[in-house]
Amino acid sequence: MSKLFTTPVPLQKVQVHDPFWKSRMEIVRTRMIPYQWRALHDAVPGAAPSHCIRNFSIAAGLEKGRFEGYVFQDSDLAKWLEAVAYTLIWRPDASLEQQADEAIDLICAAQQPDGYMDTYYIINGLEKRFTNLRDHHELYCLGHMVEAAVAYHASTGKAKLLNAVCRCVDLVDSLFGPEPEKKHGYPGHEILEMALIRLYETTQQPRYLRLAQYFINQRGQQPLYFDEEARRRGEMPAPGPDTYRQADIPVREQQHAEGHAVRAVYLYSGMADVARLSGDDGLQDACTRLWQDVVQRQMYVTGGIGATGDGEAFTIPYDLPNDTNYAETCASVGLVFLAQRMLRSAPKAEYADVMECALYNGTISGMTLDGERFFYVNPLEVEPEIVAANPNMRDIKIERQKWFGCACCPPNLARLIASLGSYLWTYRESTLYQHLYVGARTELQLGGHCVQVCVETEYPWKPAMRTSFSMDTPAAFTYALRIPGWCSGKFTLACNGAPVSYQMQDGYALIERTWQNGDSVMFVPDMPVQRLYANPRVRDDIGKVAIRRGPVVYCLEEADNGKGLQRVYLPTHAVFTERPLPQPLGKGLALACTGLSVVESSENAPLYQTTPPTLVARDLLWIPYYAWANRAAGEMTVWVHAMSM
Amino acid sequence: MSKLFTTPVPLQKVQVHDPFWKSRMEIVRTRMIPYQWRALHDAVPGAAPSHCIRNFSIAAGLEKGRFEGYVFQDSDLAKWLEAVAYTLIWRPDASLEQQADEAIDLICAAQQPDGYMDTYYIINGLEKRFTNLRDHHELYCLGHMVEAAVAYHASTGKAKLLNAVCRCVDLVDSLFGPEPEKKHGYPGHEILEMALIRLYETTQQPRYLRLAQYFINQRGQQPLYFDEEARRRGEMPAPGPDTYRQADIPVREQQHAEGHAVRAVYLYSGMADVARLSGDDGLQDACTRLWQDVVQRQMYVTGGIGATGDGEAFTIPYDLPNDTNYAETCASVGLVFLAQRMLRSAPKAEYADVMECALYNGTISGMTLDGERFFYVNPLEVEPEIVAANPNMRDIKIERQKWFGCACCPPNLARLIASLGSYLWTYRESTLYQHLYVGARTELQLGGHCVQVCVETEYPWKPAMRTSFSMDTPAAFTYALRIPGWCSGKFTLACNGAPVSYQMQDGYALIERTWQNGDSVMFVPDMPVQRLYANPRVRDDIGKVAIRRGPVVYCLEEADNGKGLQRVYLPTHAVFTERPLPQPLGKGLALACTGLSVVESSENAPLYQTTPPTLVARDLLWIPYYAWANRAAGEMTVWVHAMSM
Repeated sequence: MSKLFTTPVPLQKVQVHDPFWKSRMEIVRTRMIPYQWRALHDAVPGAAPSHCIRNFSIAAGLEKGRFEGYVFQDSDLAKWLEAVAYTLIWRPDASLEQQADEAIDLICAAQQPDGYMDTYYIINGLEKRFTNLRDHHELYCLGHMVEAAVAYHASTGKAKLLNAVCRCVDLVDSLFGPEPEKKHGYPGHEILEMALIRLYETTQQPRYLRLAQYFINQRGQQPLYFDEEARRRGEMPAPGPDTYRQADIPVREQQHAEGHAVRAVYLYSGMADVARLSGDDGLQDACTRLWQDVVQRQMYVTGGIGATGDGEAFTIPYDLPNDTNYAETCASVGLVFLAQRMLRSAPKAEYADVMECALYNGTISGMTLDGERFFYVNPLEVEPEIVAANPNMRDIKIERQKWFGCACCPPNLARLIASLGSYLWTYRESTLYQHLYVGARTELQLGGHCVQVCVETEYPWKPAMRTSFSMDTPAAFTYALRIPGWCSGKFTLACNGAPVSYQMQDGYALIERTWQNGDSVMFVPDMPVQRLYANPRVRDDIGKVAIRRGPVVYCLEEADNGKGLQRVYLPTHAVFTERPLPQPLGKGLALACTGLSVVESSENAPLYQTTPPTLVARDLLWIPYYAWANRAAGEMTVWVHAMSM
Repeated sequence: MSKLFTTPVPLQKVQVHDPFWKSRMEIVRTRMIPYQWRALHDAVPGAAPSHCIRNFSIAAGLEKGRFEGYVFQDSDLAKWLEAVAYTLIWRPDASLEQQADEAIDLICAAQQPDGYMDTYYIINGLEKRFTNLRDHHELYCLGHMVEAAVAYHASTGKAKLLNAVCRCVDLVDSLFGPEPEKKHGYPGHEILEMALIRLYETTQQPRYLRLAQYFINQRGQQPLYFDEEARRRGEMPAPGPDTYRQADIPVREQQHAEGHAVRAVYLYSGMADVARLSGDDGLQDACTRLWQDVVQRQMYVTGGIGATGDGEAFTIPYDLPNDTNYAETCASVGLVFLAQRMLRSAPKAEYADVMECALYNGTISGMTLDGERFFYVNPLEVEPEIVAANPNMRDIKIERQKWFGCACCPPNLARLIASLGSYLWTYRESTLYQHLYVGARTELQLGGHCVQVCVETEYPWKPAMRTSFSMDTPAAFTYALRIPGWCSGKFTLACNGAPVSYQMQDGYALIERTWQNGDSVMFVPDMPVQRLYANPRVRDDIGKVAIRRGPVVYCLEEADNGKGLQRVYLPTHAVFTERPLPQPLGKGLALACTGLSVVESSENAPLYQTTPPTLVARDLLWIPYYAWANRAAGEMTVWVHAMSM
């Protein structure tokens, strides 16, 4: 099995020049990172205070005060640092690096002599540390700090934070593990598992892999650690099975994706990492089963996951309400992490399809186009008056917010977008897998040769993608292009202008040949406007249709279409015309068509009547889902009624 | 205006022999009343304890203990007494009357020397009474006690409870009112307003009308009483406008039905009473406006009201989700009360249409056919797995319950059904209005003559209704038959077998003539199976259709139709066939038709695909909505997809 494993081309080797993504990376660099820095310093007027930097400062003894904010507030600085680290790779910036170094100095100044780092317990009393893993996010914060440290080390070569987190992880390693004298616990909110794998890959210290493995295998074992821990605190264990934290049964026995959606995909990411590195087929099977449950039964068409705000959680397969959902931005970000790890284990186009869906829809819908306001929850259907009035929609915002008391999503988006280059390709020996169609360059060893790869495309607006290879001497290797699920197997593939032979394998077209310097591949998938129908088990979408073109899911917004979007019907014969996006929505395509609409009732029309409502023609303009809510607040819908199905 | 007022034919004058309702009245008498008596005594195994009788017993000094249950627990005994009083009218029962007398003795034993009656404060300390009208339901409990007392006096002629409540109301009257030295408060949960009108109509004491008038006019006046009262308790006033209690602004300024649905319709009922008796057109206008807002914008097709369980409340006009609604049984009961009062003010068929809709659907859906289990919430769409998994449906039960800690609904249903006879007719001078088609007899003075009226019908299963009149000498009067909204103006009307002339007025066919002894009227409205379409402003019902026959709204249930009811489509050409109701659902009609169904997807079918789902023929059996959940728990739906609208 191990021979199928692939490795991502690291970010340090990738230069993204893609029009769609590079502009967003620049927004992260020039807007989100400075904005979030101010937010972490409580310096954004009108935004919920973060308290984050202040907590570190108090923990370091530099100022007096109480810990404020959520117990996991430290993680926001870690995510900011991680995003900074990625931008420094593709855009060195001495002043920003200086800022990051100072933040790291502050973090290290707060670190305790034994390596402990969490400001909540440093401020509130170290004697209570590691007594409430269930609720208090110490290991979660450490996980984010490890990810930041690994990224910053890779980016700048500086090891201060890396050394600091190693000391803290070593402390954790000395306290947790299978030995009888150790605590048999694991993170309440998963992430340290996958972070430890990154630390292992950086440091090559097997104890970090072993600790990740322990956390994953121990999770949900009897007696349940969180229950024991609660009893030790003199509390009753929480009632009911702890599906919220995926900690009710061992992970290998879990059949359905359950509980808090972000935690779930972070856990599964760690499982995939550990399974790959330990050759643990049983764990990989569990991971694949849970992946399939997410993407085949519990995922919105936008790549959003989490059907309810209550626990920010999955509910049950096929329960996907569009107007009371959660689909947290972080959960889609986590789904990208998981997809990448699934691709490392076995390159299958279905994994990359989901990754691409989340990237072009459910993740970036979490930010305004200027990168300064954010959605936590990503609904697929909004009527502002009802959102305001119906408590079932209490989690839905109709406009993105400046910041959140619990501000996990904005910096999570920043670190994802800033590292986008690392999601494009994976490789092994003499095969290069092209997962995403993003304009970028890289250089890597393939079949023993140094090969330069350059991808040019106006994706997702135009389907054509040209890949050219440069090398000193001809090189034999396989170029494996993902054939997107959405092109229904319709595409053209040419090499130097002539048809080229290829083999299909797991959704990839494998072109195996000896490549000459300057060879180029032109890939043009069919990219029509598509009608999507949900599996009929999704009761909320029965009789409805959504629109997708390439990877981009569209929606109707009041700004273009007026009110009453739930009255829209899309006839089978409707023809779509491409239009430039209305401004200020940036570059891209809108789609126009003539639909139908139930005629609006008059003011005092009866509530129920025996006459069927009449339909009239209605011009519709569809915009990409990610672009909604960048103009005046109003209605939005992804799904509309399908006519004559 | 006053000449349009009508008076209900009192229950004492009515003998119901209607097959549909008499059997339910007997269930109230033989099952619900004994069952509820046991429940009030905490003697139903497995049911939530009531504590009600025990609280009275403690308050009376007959046993020791603490007050338990909700602050409004007293009201359950009052409702039970009221239901008993009504049954004693049409079915004297010395042993039951003895039981009721003993209950009244207990209530009176607990009454304080100054007339105060509420067991919560009697047990917990009288010094705190009347300090928290907002939350503590003292005046609500008194309202129910007044209703019980008036009913018991009318039924048995016994005045013990009536005298007791008069003393308590007099105490309240001495403490509340416009005078500077009095408290300027009003009930937190309305009902005392309409109860005081009943007390006024029984005792003819104008102070009871004045007190009701005061409560209604004072409600929502600045400074807000509940805020002042909170400050006097040393608490902060509750944040936000108190729409929950309809106490944010004066009732005459209220434009929309808002807040707790039961409270709202109880308040509006009191408003209608006071407006009628005081000739207050402004108040009547407010009442009519709020009525219209309820029935034209916020009512389910079943006569249910309350779109959310959060506050058991209305949300905004046209927000009527079918699966996360509340539609509390009590709220539909209250809607019947309100409709009757609207009819007293002005006999318009639209009021009786709503009353009939609530009676045949949303009220009696609150009980099993045997009268021993109850729904608090009446959803219009249920999938048990999703109800169990999605917290937005936390208020929905898929099976009726034995009892509730907050057990307002079961005895409210009992008192409604037991007094059904009082909703059939109203009259004035020489006009008799027939609002409901229910087999029953009465005798009353019309145009100065004593007239006996007998109605025979197999309604709602068969449309024909025959009314015959007996009298000693010919009598000139007008017989006004409501033409139901659902017959779309199609009906036949004959007198003694020959066509008869009539005038239409506000939806009533007025037959004005000199009636001879033995004259009979045969009324046959058109009663086809009807498709109902919601106003397109109701986004949850767009593209959907419901089925009604006469006043009875139908639903599909899993017991007859299998799973996947949300996949059902009803084609325009579907033909309905009448069938006997499947047993054990009792006498009545089911409706069979051939519909369509989206084909169920295979186990691992993709979540989204570009192929539209296919439809296949599917046999459907519709049962009356009130009869659902009397067999195995399963799916149910009122609305299904409409084909080719």
